[in-house]
Amino acid sequence: MPDTTAEAQPAAYTPTDRTMPTRDAERASYDRKVVHAILDEGYVCHLGFVRDGAPVVLPTLYGRVGERLYIHGSTGSRPLRMTGAADPGLEVCLTVTHVDGLVLARSAFNHSINYRSVVVHGIAHQVTDPEERRRALDALVDHVVAGRAADSRPANKKELAATAVIRLDLDEVSAKIRTGDANDEPEDLALPHWAGVVPLRKGYDAPIPNADLASGIELPDYLTGE
Amino acid sequence: MPDTTAEAQPAAYTPTDRTMPTRDAERASYDRKVVHAILDEGYVCHLGFVRDGAPVVLPTLYGRVGERLYIHGSTGSRPLRMTGAADPGLEVCLTVTHVDGLVLARSAFNHSINYRSVVVHGIAHQVTDPEERRRALDALVDHVVAGRAADSRPANKKELAATAVIRLDLDEVSAKIRTGDANDEPEDLALPHWAGVVPLRKGYDAPIPNADLASGIELPDYLTGE
Repeated sequence: MPDTTAEAQPAAYTPTDRTMPTRDAERASYDRKVVHAILDEGYVCHLGFVRDGAPVVLPTLYGRVGERLYIHGSTGSRPLRMTGAADPGLEVCLTVTHVDGLVLARSAFNHSINYRSVVVHGIAHQVTDPEERRRALDALVDHVVAGRAADSRPANKKELAATAVIRLDLDEVSAKIRTGDANDEPEDLALPHWAGVVPLRKGYDAPIPNADLASGIELPDYLTGE
Repeated sequence: MPDTTAEAQPAAYTPTDRTMPTRDAERASYDRKVVHAILDEGYVCHLGFVRDGAPVVLPTLYGRVGERLYIHGSTGSRPLRMTGAADPGLEVCLTVTHVDGLVLARSAFNHSINYRSVVVHGIAHQVTDPEERRRALDALVDHVVAGRAADSRPANKKELAATAVIRLDLDEVSAKIRTGDANDEPEDLALPHWAGVVPLRKGYDAPIPNADLASGIELPDYLTGE
């Protein structure tokens, strides 16, 4: 199921009541490219839904194909059961956050973090089309490490039967970004406290081969570039 | 308001229906020390609540004092308005997740991540006691960088009036942890795909002083240890 809608999209998502911030409005963005870049850099999202009237927030892997996000899981897991194909779907809020730096101000009040986050509101639906399910599962693996789906054994019938895939369209979406120095009050600038940003480390360390890895299998190119 | 309850606590939280996993039960933990360690290592939590019947998940800073988590924000922000002192509180789900490594299996199906997460369910209440508010705000700053609260200007009256503090007791809590190698099916072990774990970088890079930092202010000891 090729995503034929991508080229026809406007450059930005349309703000709604719940994607418009009540404060720090200058940090908000609805730009599709900004949103996609934040989503593509994350490993887990935090998926929120309502169960028995109460909120639930679970970390989970995800993948993106154009304007669609995909999540997968055991067909027995609670949120995935709740999106059964025959029902009207599950209302969710999916959030991805990167913490980029710790912001130390002279005043306790102005301490903050530099971050980039995306919040997606919408209705999640189970994917039943076999071809779309395949593409979604490839996207989920390639989201962990780009190029990995082609270098692993694809899911077999039994695995596919045990896996539920749900889709959330990118429609009601916003990003929020804080960058740069600490913002202190003018009267605090002369205080004797250090102020600045402590950047958090990104990227990954040397890969660790499985204990049962057969000899002679080299580290693949897609893991040596970083 | 000293936390006199800490010493009387049993070693583990009591599981409930919603903190007992439906699968991967061996990854669950209710041990207080395990939960505290995961919480103390995080920078942001993902706070879920229900607004107009729909889930909302927002990233936010937090701090811990014994068995209490604290969140703060503008008195005008939506979730904090919803916890007004006169109301019965706001039902929330607060989740903290660390992604430790990418787990590459020979099979697409067995790809995973190594992670540690904590999920807290409960009712969040606004804190009105001035002394508890002070301690909570110190904990929030010290959570970003330990030792920083004592090395910054405390909040003044105007800032305190603009800040709402909410508390969530650690009561209905669980941790979930995955560590170690990729788990492939026995029949996949001979496949020619690399398998193993790619550890994500932790810690932080060299601190960047604010552009307006007065000359002669050295990097504090609590930032040079890592």
